Amino acid sequence: MLSLEQLKEITRQSDSKIVLLVIDGLGGLPRPETGKTELESAHIPNLAELANKGNCGLTDPVSPGITPGSAPGHLALFGYDPVKYLVGRGILEAMGIDFDLKKGDVAARGNFCTIDSKGLVTDRRAGRISTEENAKLCKKLSNIKLEGVQLYIVPVKEHRFLLVLHSEGLSGDASDSDPQQVGVAPLSVVGHSPGGKKTAELANEFAAKAKSVLADSHPANMVLLRGFSQHPNLPTMNEIFKLNPAAIAAYPMYRGLAKLVGMKILNTGATIEEEFDTLVKHYAEHDFFFIHAKKTDSTGEDGDFAAKVHALEEIDRLLPKIISLSPDVLIVTGDHSTPAMLKGHSWHPVPLLLYSKWCRADHVREFGETACASGGLGKFPAVEVMPLAMANALKMTKFGA
Amino acid sequence: MLSLEQLKEITRQSDSKIVLLVIDGLGGLPRPETGKTELESAHIPNLAELANKGNCGLTDPVSPGITPGSAPGHLALFGYDPVKYLVGRGILEAMGIDFDLKKGDVAARGNFCTIDSKGLVTDRRAGRISTEENAKLCKKLSNIKLEGVQLYIVPVKEHRFLLVLHSEGLSGDASDSDPQQVGVAPLSVVGHSPGGKKTAELANEFAAKAKSVLADSHPANMVLLRGFSQHPNLPTMNEIFKLNPAAIAAYPMYRGLAKLVGMKILNTGATIEEEFDTLVKHYAEHDFFFIHAKKTDSTGEDGDFAAKVHALEEIDRLLPKIISLSPDVLIVTGDHSTPAMLKGHSWHPVPLLLYSKWCRADHVREFGETACASGGLGKFPAVEVMPLAMANALKMTKFGA
Repeated sequence: MLSLEQLKEITRQSDSKIVLLVIDGLGGLPRPETGKTELESAHIPNLAELANKGNCGLTDPVSPGITPGSAPGHLALFGYDPVKYLVGRGILEAMGIDFDLKKGDVAARGNFCTIDSKGLVTDRRAGRISTEENAKLCKKLSNIKLEGVQLYIVPVKEHRFLLVLHSEGLSGDASDSDPQQVGVAPLSVVGHSPGGKKTAELANEFAAKAKSVLADSHPANMVLLRGFSQHPNLPTMNEIFKLNPAAIAAYPMYRGLAKLVGMKILNTGATIEEEFDTLVKHYAEHDFFFIHAKKTDSTGEDGDFAAKVHALEEIDRLLPKIISLSPDVLIVTGDHSTPAMLKGHSWHPVPLLLYSKWCRADHVREFGETACASGGLGKFPAVEVMPLAMANALKMTKFGA
Repeated sequence: MLSLEQLKEITRQSDSKIVLLVIDGLGGLPRPETGKTELESAHIPNLAELANKGNCGLTDPVSPGITPGSAPGHLALFGYDPVKYLVGRGILEAMGIDFDLKKGDVAARGNFCTIDSKGLVTDRRAGRISTEENAKLCKKLSNIKLEGVQLYIVPVKEHRFLLVLHSEGLSGDASDSDPQQVGVAPLSVVGHSPGGKKTAELANEFAAKAKSVLADSHPANMVLLRGFSQHPNLPTMNEIFKLNPAAIAAYPMYRGLAKLVGMKILNTGATIEEEFDTLVKHYAEHDFFFIHAKKTDSTGEDGDFAAKVHALEEIDRLLPKIISLSPDVLIVTGDHSTPAMLKGHSWHPVPLLLYSKWCRADHVREFGETACASGGLGKFPAVEVMPLAMANALKMTKFGA
């Protein structure tokens, strides 16, 4: 695999257009009754036609057996080695609520929790307090002052909040205060570098003050912090691929991930149809589009096989909106599998189809896990998808003399 | 690929059980008369049924084109990058005879050889003296005293012996005395580090004394030493995978390799049937079992196609003993190929089948090289087998936020 520096040397700008449709949690597992996965059960004539004309395969988001979170799954598809380029929990939390992080900010994921009279954690989620209660408590915590640092406490959902420290010389190199178990006291945050030590000092001071502010707010009478992290400062897709890339995603976290790699975020409605219409509207303005379809993942996580099938059929029904634009390269794949049978992300390889004038069609006639397993692209790491897209768009020159 | 440190972060202990059946030298090459390999010629209905219900693929033990020795072949299957974690010849020799190495010991493989009156090597194997003669000579050599070191000289087979130096501050970082050709004198051992220099000094003193002890023992009138090495101190499978692993292997070398990664060695008889019975007997005590079947490799090395086919059929016939235990994950594969047509280890990818409740069955209906080539697991490095096994046993959490 080439490094991003090496890739940069051989990419070139051109007018050709790439559309990458990421169907979140696309891969599945067969229902015992039929032996067919969600994708294999769905009526998806447009995807089948693309598979027929295109080249198919399976991707490993990270490597065999590894179940990726959303960040590694997407970074790999954007061309970034997910084992090398890590996004911290705090940063992801900030992206999930569209928080505008500044350079140098340290973000952490916070939980309201319950402690007993001895200070031991009895519930790591404070009985999942309501989001309204959370908002009130975050307002209280926002009054805490720490010397030389600007503090942001932003409510997320239920017991979750985002903590952002804005100052100079901080680093995310600090341990969690969340002990990940009950019956023990919250841990002291420990820094592992000069910047991490400064972060730890501030975090511990914040936690101490939060404890007294929340003393009367049982069950949410304490906070736990984890995933201290900073913006990873990735090289942009423009720098590496010389693309002018845009993202169409209804969910903040995926917009955040796209922003991390320098994509322009396009305003869009939340449905697939609205997302596809957004593509049509802005098609002239960019040469790369990432479109994110979420419903397949959430229905998979709910364990709702039929709803995931339905979500796939909805995408297929609307696909002509994309096809009629005749992108030079159209890739349909997922960031990972979310089999309804497992009710969560999984390690299973993800079907991928690539259609371009130069794709070298294989014998695959339908879009499904089993069919793609014997496709012309074989099984390959998701981080290779972008080089493949660029090549098919004739946006790369020779490597080596 | 994740590092072992990264893997460690996402593995978890659970009650599910993994059985890894390693059929040594499993892969083969077709006999021209039939166009079928050993595996494809064998009547193996139980393996075919597992292939049918499971997910198949091919592994590269190291990487395409590389023929592995026994150590890299097995270490890869145990999850250790075989290019990074090397086991020296001396250590392997010690493991092959169940020699109990202590921490810091340096082991080397020794050959009795023949030298002429000028001290030049005329036969690197001393005419392959008998194992009995070898034992007598090793007894003589054991009387050699070296200052500040305990010396072990242990006969192996024919002209081979094991030398172990037990002392402080030694290292395996020393060159061979074996010149690997005749007509030249044995080389002086040269150390490449302080510990290696100490080893070299002792080895050269030993060789000089051995020469005078053996002066009247023509043809075995000198020794050649190679592969100075120390225990590689690998992180254990328990540390990485949180498993309580056990090994069932009739041959010492494979028990030794299993011991290197921290497996408990179970007492077993030498036949496949006895090995499988050992699994049944100890099934409740461990959550991971490595079972080693040797005969396929030795018959392959003998070039005996029919005997290798027979050995495969014997394994298949006894397989219900394993299947009836219903392990959560059952993997059948080999450490490398040993085609009877080549009479030795080879670089050819090795068939693998994985059966679990969550394996996502593919369209492969039989267990053979050609069938596995289009399986759902594709072709992948053997070092990924353990993550895949762990995932299918639901013993891993998500990677990345």
